[in-house]
Amino acid sequence: MDSTPSTADRLVFAAMKLFLEKGYGSTSVQDILREAKANAGSLYHAFPTKQDVLLAVLDMYRQGIGPMLLAPAWNGVDDPIERIFALLGAYRRALEMTDCTYSCPIGSLALELHEPDPPVRELLAVNFDGWVDAVKGCLDAAGDRLPPGTDTRALGQFILTVMEGGVMQSRTHRSLEAFDASVAGLRDYLNRLQADANSTGKP
Amino acid sequence: MDSTPSTADRLVFAAMKLFLEKGYGSTSVQDILREAKANAGSLYHAFPTKQDVLLAVLDMYRQGIGPMLLAPAWNGVDDPIERIFALLGAYRRALEMTDCTYSCPIGSLALELHEPDPPVRELLAVNFDGWVDAVKGCLDAAGDRLPPGTDTRALGQFILTVMEGGVMQSRTHRSLEAFDASVAGLRDYLNRLQADANSTGKP
Repeated sequence: MDSTPSTADRLVFAAMKLFLEKGYGSTSVQDILREAKANAGSLYHAFPTKQDVLLAVLDMYRQGIGPMLLAPAWNGVDDPIERIFALLGAYRRALEMTDCTYSCPIGSLALELHEPDPPVRELLAVNFDGWVDAVKGCLDAAGDRLPPGTDTRALGQFILTVMEGGVMQSRTHRSLEAFDASVAGLRDYLNRLQADANSTGKP
Repeated sequence: MDSTPSTADRLVFAAMKLFLEKGYGSTSVQDILREAKANAGSLYHAFPTKQDVLLAVLDMYRQGIGPMLLAPAWNGVDDPIERIFALLGAYRRALEMTDCTYSCPIGSLALELHEPDPPVRELLAVNFDGWVDAVKGCLDAAGDRLPPGTDTRALGQFILTVMEGGVMQSRTHRSLEAFDASVAGLRDYLNRLQADANSTGKP
């Protein structure tokens, strides 16, 4: 019995699936119970309110950035700049596999919840920060392949912007075109930064 | 009496306000009636379902891109590249004036509605296209200030990506930092494209 997921985890994964498919507002506590095959008592014991489930979902995403997002995307990819495009490639595959109905769960919640309570908003921001930090790590590892003085945190935020804006448009157009155009713009920009760094380093 | 807005317009503007403040799912038909000070009969006569109100709101946004978004943003700005940054500046002001709670109404609906009916999704896409076309017009007007062969539609989509991703992050962090970082990345990229075009044109 020790290898079965806890009821709390089952509830969190059920809620994660439903929020992704229908959104937070459209998911009822009943929906979560049905999806998790759990009873109301176990839900209210673990999570007194629907917002408590949401906080647990956001924390699960936060914990999952490394093992569930970055590790599979970076498997076999060592070059730090290519890791950024491998990460963006994971979102492209998610769009492809869902006929462009995919949306980033954090981005969707960030726009669906119009007045999120502070702990919810903070955990959304922590998820964005985790993503940006991972990309900043790649940019820092690229070292002098980027121009001297490059603000790698700001550039990491720009790269998250490219992912979120590209996913939003592709999902709306049900076509990869806008996502691909956005990533191509970023690729051209990073190529130009690298060419600049390369020429600056030359005597 | 001719100068008063029609009941249908009052309903559409009331719904526009509520969708922006609370989202589509959280806005009830009762909320719209209360906000518009209209009776149920007039609503059902003009818009048999809540989705019909949404379609009218999206069509109002589509019609408003020129007079309500571009005209004020571009007032006194003639340079086509600066018009792009003036448009982005309008979103920055919206973030500033709302303590970074603003979100783009089209982007929010595009992510809030998880399985939009085809006419809704198409009208969201038409709004994105209208924005991209306006920016593409600026890029086309910039002519040989951009490198030969620049795909101005793809670059326009990239610029919409920058706005949407920047607004999403700034709203979530309740700080202009990520929006500013995204626009700064775009500015640097467009500067590099212009420098490239300029050097290519030289003998």
